[in-house]
Amino acid sequence: MTVQPPLASRMARIRPFRAMDLLARARALEAAGCDIVHMEVGEPDFPTPGPVVEAARTALGDAALGYTPAMGLPALRQAIAGHYGERFGCSVDPGRIVVTPGASGALQAVLAVLAGPGDEVLVTDPGYPCNRNFVHLLEARPVPVPVRAGNGWQPTLQELEAVWSPRVRVVMFASPMNPTGTLLEEGRLRELVSFVEDRGAVVVMDEIYQRMLFDSAPFTALSLSDRLYVVDSFSKYFGMTGWRIGWLVAPPAQVEAIDRVVQNLFLAAPTLSQHAALAAFLPETTTLLEKRVAAFRERRDFLLPALEAIGFRVEVPPSGAFYIYADSSRFDDDAIRLCDRLLEQAGVAVTPGADFGEEGAATHVRFAFTTSLDRLREGVERLGRFLAG
Amino acid sequence: MTVQPPLASRMARIRPFRAMDLLARARALEAAGCDIVHMEVGEPDFPTPGPVVEAARTALGDAALGYTPAMGLPALRQAIAGHYGERFGCSVDPGRIVVTPGASGALQAVLAVLAGPGDEVLVTDPGYPCNRNFVHLLEARPVPVPVRAGNGWQPTLQELEAVWSPRVRVVMFASPMNPTGTLLEEGRLRELVSFVEDRGAVVVMDEIYQRMLFDSAPFTALSLSDRLYVVDSFSKYFGMTGWRIGWLVAPPAQVEAIDRVVQNLFLAAPTLSQHAALAAFLPETTTLLEKRVAAFRERRDFLLPALEAIGFRVEVPPSGAFYIYADSSRFDDDAIRLCDRLLEQAGVAVTPGADFGEEGAATHVRFAFTTSLDRLREGVERLGRFLAG
Repeated sequence: MTVQPPLASRMARIRPFRAMDLLARARALEAAGCDIVHMEVGEPDFPTPGPVVEAARTALGDAALGYTPAMGLPALRQAIAGHYGERFGCSVDPGRIVVTPGASGALQAVLAVLAGPGDEVLVTDPGYPCNRNFVHLLEARPVPVPVRAGNGWQPTLQELEAVWSPRVRVVMFASPMNPTGTLLEEGRLRELVSFVEDRGAVVVMDEIYQRMLFDSAPFTALSLSDRLYVVDSFSKYFGMTGWRIGWLVAPPAQVEAIDRVVQNLFLAAPTLSQHAALAAFLPETTTLLEKRVAAFRERRDFLLPALEAIGFRVEVPPSGAFYIYADSSRFDDDAIRLCDRLLEQAGVAVTPGADFGEEGAATHVRFAFTTSLDRLREGVERLGRFLAG
Repeated sequence: MTVQPPLASRMARIRPFRAMDLLARARALEAAGCDIVHMEVGEPDFPTPGPVVEAARTALGDAALGYTPAMGLPALRQAIAGHYGERFGCSVDPGRIVVTPGASGALQAVLAVLAGPGDEVLVTDPGYPCNRNFVHLLEARPVPVPVRAGNGWQPTLQELEAVWSPRVRVVMFASPMNPTGTLLEEGRLRELVSFVEDRGAVVVMDEIYQRMLFDSAPFTALSLSDRLYVVDSFSKYFGMTGWRIGWLVAPPAQVEAIDRVVQNLFLAAPTLSQHAALAAFLPETTTLLEKRVAAFRERRDFLLPALEAIGFRVEVPPSGAFYIYADSSRFDDDAIRLCDRLLEQAGVAVTPGADFGEEGAATHVRFAFTTSLDRLREGVERLGRFLAG
């Protein structure tokens, strides 16, 4: 047996997703004949919209399928810019828009341009788990900003001040955020952006769930400043997860640096996905997608009181996305153990808080309502029976 | 005018591709009505094979287009393993195969797992330019191994010894290599792999051009050791550049680490591209692709003597891929200036050596024979006229 050489030291800091592990175990149980209600997956259950699939079919016959320019098809960059005008009433130069392999590619490119050794990147806790890992990859230091239910799970100026240091180069926000579905309102965001930019750091705003709002109109941080980055995606609202396509909007002065990074890291985003995404902004697609947002709202309106009725405590109801973050301490003070029991003994897959950070992680779980109302009803019934038993 | 915050310090080390810049300028000249012969692009001119496009069309109707598992569709990993058996007579466990967004994604994932601050990564000079930039991204240090025409543009044991230090963690080879199209023969490779592995470092072997050989049978480094990484791609031989799909083969002990990195960086490779790639191994696809290899051989057989006849000196004829690396010192001792003149005054786009390193870069240019014989003839005629004039 030959000795394997050691891994890079960063690998000790890069953790796997528990949600993925749970999904794999759920699939194994299903293969063994069990029926599992999936409330762990952050992927909409709706298929890619018909007009988008149709556009891909047309491109398969008509379009050149070689590399596009590194920053993306000019027509798609133009269409995204148009979308900001129509949907958000915000004028954005298409030259600032860079098409990427998913929001994953966008987040990586933005951090590659901004952060390295000695730099700190503020990330909310709880928050999207990959963000910390992108920062580790680039040998910068992720600094958690613990956020509280009392503040809608979003950071306050005081919380940013409490962890601030001159080494902070980047501050990452998301609205609605994963895992709580809660918003960062315009007033508070404006205050936070000023605070960060006055100190020479950069805001990176994740807006991938921004069009999936239940009680208010979409809003983009681009209307506040042209020094911040916005990251967005065709995955969630537009139903294109497996197509690996998203985008970023860069400050004008940093587009050239982003171009250099994306041409080296990715060469370009997938060509067929770019052609397909052109159909994501068609009126008939929008009509379809808005019906889906209504369906997600209906699921939230069912699931929220149903979970509360069986003993989960939801401190802040979600205003968007498709997640409910719930206090599960009444049932178990170890959410990882609880999720194991729920999967194996109740047949319901739920993600423990530990996937999203440290703060309150042991007493919280995330429910994703990415399955039908019927299945959600079945899931709640199983949970109720099991937890009462 | 607000002050922009500074870029991460790595950005001073990440250089743009000149080939991309040249392509952009060539397109601008074309838009202005000029006719340009493209010999700068490292992308085959053949379209994606029919059976692959057909498989994509079928998947558009039939398949779930959501995320696949992070390591790829099990059927595709199995098919790639089967390909190693059939084509290379080499048995590979599908569990070691990880599907990635192009060889770019594979190279990035491998280096993320292996190299960080304080680590050195040996890269050939000349060599594939993105490799150095991947290493900079991860805050490790790329150390060039100058390679010589007299050794077939591939490193020797003595050259590796000359630059070796205990900090070397990774050694990157490619066969055939870009920009020279020359091979690392089995005997020499075996010696190099032993040398590297005896010192506790890891070989990363780029085999993306390995099936495009003109004078010998394909060979995989996997048959030499199960401690090295192989990186491969559906882009070049299989004609799927814009589909952004490739793979890596990992040492068994490091598959778990690779999985953690790819699930964070990419989530997964594009789903439709994975379904399409299943058809890349069909017998009818192979028949088509082998005809293309024959066409590339025919182009080499034309272009090599034709370039020599007009005064370029080709120290080592290419044995594979679709590049000729030629000494251009007879015409200009500044290859960047020469390429500018060739583009603007002769209407022929060629890449200067500076894209691939420092060593001999000012006196070499790369010709890509990724265009038809007729266009190559036209290109050589223009070059001959211009350079004689």
